[in-house]
Amino acid sequence: MSFSEYLPTQLQIQYQRLDTPFLMVDKPIMLHNLSRLRDQIEVLGAQLRPHFKTVRALEAMAHLLPSKDAPITVSTVKEAEALVDAGYLNIVYAVGISEGKLPRIAALNAKGAQVRVLLDTVEQAEFMSLYSSEHQCTIAALIEVDCDGHRGGIEPDDPQLIAIASILHRGAARFDGVLAHAGESYLCFDPVALAKAAQNEVAMTVKAATLLRAAEIPCEIVSIGSTPTAHSYQDLTGITEVRAGVYGFFDLVMAGIGVCQLDDIAASVVATVIGHNKQKGWLFIDAGWMALSGDRGTAGQPKDCGYGLVTKSTGELLEGMQVIGVNQEHGIIAAVEDELLDFSQFPVGSRLHILPNHACATASMHQHYHVFDTQDETYEIWNRIQGW
Amino acid sequence: MSFSEYLPTQLQIQYQRLDTPFLMVDKPIMLHNLSRLRDQIEVLGAQLRPHFKTVRALEAMAHLLPSKDAPITVSTVKEAEALVDAGYLNIVYAVGISEGKLPRIAALNAKGAQVRVLLDTVEQAEFMSLYSSEHQCTIAALIEVDCDGHRGGIEPDDPQLIAIASILHRGAARFDGVLAHAGESYLCFDPVALAKAAQNEVAMTVKAATLLRAAEIPCEIVSIGSTPTAHSYQDLTGITEVRAGVYGFFDLVMAGIGVCQLDDIAASVVATVIGHNKQKGWLFIDAGWMALSGDRGTAGQPKDCGYGLVTKSTGELLEGMQVIGVNQEHGIIAAVEDELLDFSQFPVGSRLHILPNHACATASMHQHYHVFDTQDETYEIWNRIQGW
Repeated sequence: MSFSEYLPTQLQIQYQRLDTPFLMVDKPIMLHNLSRLRDQIEVLGAQLRPHFKTVRALEAMAHLLPSKDAPITVSTVKEAEALVDAGYLNIVYAVGISEGKLPRIAALNAKGAQVRVLLDTVEQAEFMSLYSSEHQCTIAALIEVDCDGHRGGIEPDDPQLIAIASILHRGAARFDGVLAHAGESYLCFDPVALAKAAQNEVAMTVKAATLLRAAEIPCEIVSIGSTPTAHSYQDLTGITEVRAGVYGFFDLVMAGIGVCQLDDIAASVVATVIGHNKQKGWLFIDAGWMALSGDRGTAGQPKDCGYGLVTKSTGELLEGMQVIGVNQEHGIIAAVEDELLDFSQFPVGSRLHILPNHACATASMHQHYHVFDTQDETYEIWNRIQGW
Repeated sequence: MSFSEYLPTQLQIQYQRLDTPFLMVDKPIMLHNLSRLRDQIEVLGAQLRPHFKTVRALEAMAHLLPSKDAPITVSTVKEAEALVDAGYLNIVYAVGISEGKLPRIAALNAKGAQVRVLLDTVEQAEFMSLYSSEHQCTIAALIEVDCDGHRGGIEPDDPQLIAIASILHRGAARFDGVLAHAGESYLCFDPVALAKAAQNEVAMTVKAATLLRAAEIPCEIVSIGSTPTAHSYQDLTGITEVRAGVYGFFDLVMAGIGVCQLDDIAASVVATVIGHNKQKGWLFIDAGWMALSGDRGTAGQPKDCGYGLVTKSTGELLEGMQVIGVNQEHGIIAAVEDELLDFSQFPVGSRLHILPNHACATASMHQHYHVFDTQDETYEIWNRIQGW
């Protein structure tokens, strides 16, 4: 974060005019993050299918995708609806499908979109086929592959994989491929472990595709991804696309895993000091869990960052300072690691920036992002799509 | 929660039509919670000043307050602005004031509102006086009293109390009274501890008011409150008003403290089963931290409820089942306490209700609440005021 140090006068005025707390995005940092991963994945011969769930703002789309027909992932039907209305058509809804959501998916496809859904049970394949047949529409699905025992999905050599794909392939719905998410990679803290998780994600997913093809079921899409593994692939042979979400904003969890530096974090919450408790060594800020989220994603990491690390408004990291507690609209900042807090540096009214543990969670607390571009000297408001 | 068991046909259709996840409010339960506390406080001779931060929906106001001039508390200026526009004028903004927020407060007062702010430092009293003088407006403040060492505020016998009140009283701003919040009462788990915390909150705040009056500074408002203590007062002599927020919805944290029963919880998240992992004994639902919040408020309580307890859509508690994990749009439900999960009871597509750990946090994740009244057979959508 080397943000407001270099803020041109016009942007400085805008920054001061905004009431705290607000979510600030440093656009040049974000654009750098986006292009870095896109280049890495494309060099390895796969497509990038960014996950919209982190940013969820249509204003970001021109930066997330190279064109309107490029692939994107969503976590809610609401995101898909907003994207289709804006002309983005190649969508994977990457949360297990339930029957009640099929009418909305079918309505999007009827508008010319290609919204693929995700499933991992025979029941889901059956209601997909029945719905497609009864409503004379062909909804395409991917099967979730369990590559590391993290959450859901089917292991590649489980006979259910072929059984489910067959129902889709032979029935009125359509089978388009397999999708895996290396959720266990969030527990990797060194490049060797990350490379291993990335290789395993590739190998397990390619194995599933190979077994399906051996059973004479075409498998067009072989989709993998998580932000930690996406930055760690060496070879993507057999993979058609990679998904990642938080890599645009990055956060302390990703810095802890080692796939970014603190300087790569593009999103922070700007807060105002609203009080001191000198006996306890506490600064109060007007950003609590409503602005920061209550995410404690670094709690399980080698370096626990509390509810966020603190920088000056110049972007300089305040070493040893953390948000140690949050209430709804209060945050408590203290010096950890035996440092002493110099209250005279942080008078009531001064501003601090909080780097988020988990940018997806922090961004979700904000209707608007305040996007500053120090290079183009522009300021934009991005509007987050909310709800389901 | 004895909700959809008795749902009249029209409401049943409405309930089924809503896509999950959504926040459901059982209105009769909520109204009962609201009137219970109001009666209790009024019998003790004080006014109730509900905290708007939990519900934040104007549609709830007619139930929260008996009249438009009755007192209310807010945690953001945005809430105050919405309330004043709707004609509610008697407001305390109960988060430490920063100078940057004074123009918005002054604008509300210029519209005829009485928005009082909160502070606990000499600096704040000084910029309040200066602002009031320079802008020829009189902004009234309460001083935060620290009754239990929980967060901010000034201890009653700290000479700063008189010093700050004097600046306000003599200058262009106005001193209207004292305010305390017994935040440590959230760590009480039996009636004796709660009664002690409640008595202490009363005693410490009355002491502050008494010392101020002894210094010839009038102290009109003596405001205390937290949902745990608000339900535990025996004697409110010397107290003018009580604040509480979560008592309308209630939640698992409050049930753990003992100020409500599970049946009193008026807000729940309705989710759909979207998958099974039979090996691990997991049900997946389409409600993750985006719908439930990531709040772990029961983690420090005698009974840890994970990310929420589970009921059938009939309202019946599923004993031993909990949300044990959340991702953005996935929740994982498992049987804890050695129970076995009978998957045949929870097919993909079935609905479950999740009782929230912390209703303020869960409600904050939703733009709309779906409010069902089984007695009046009505369904309403309430719109949450968002942002700051």
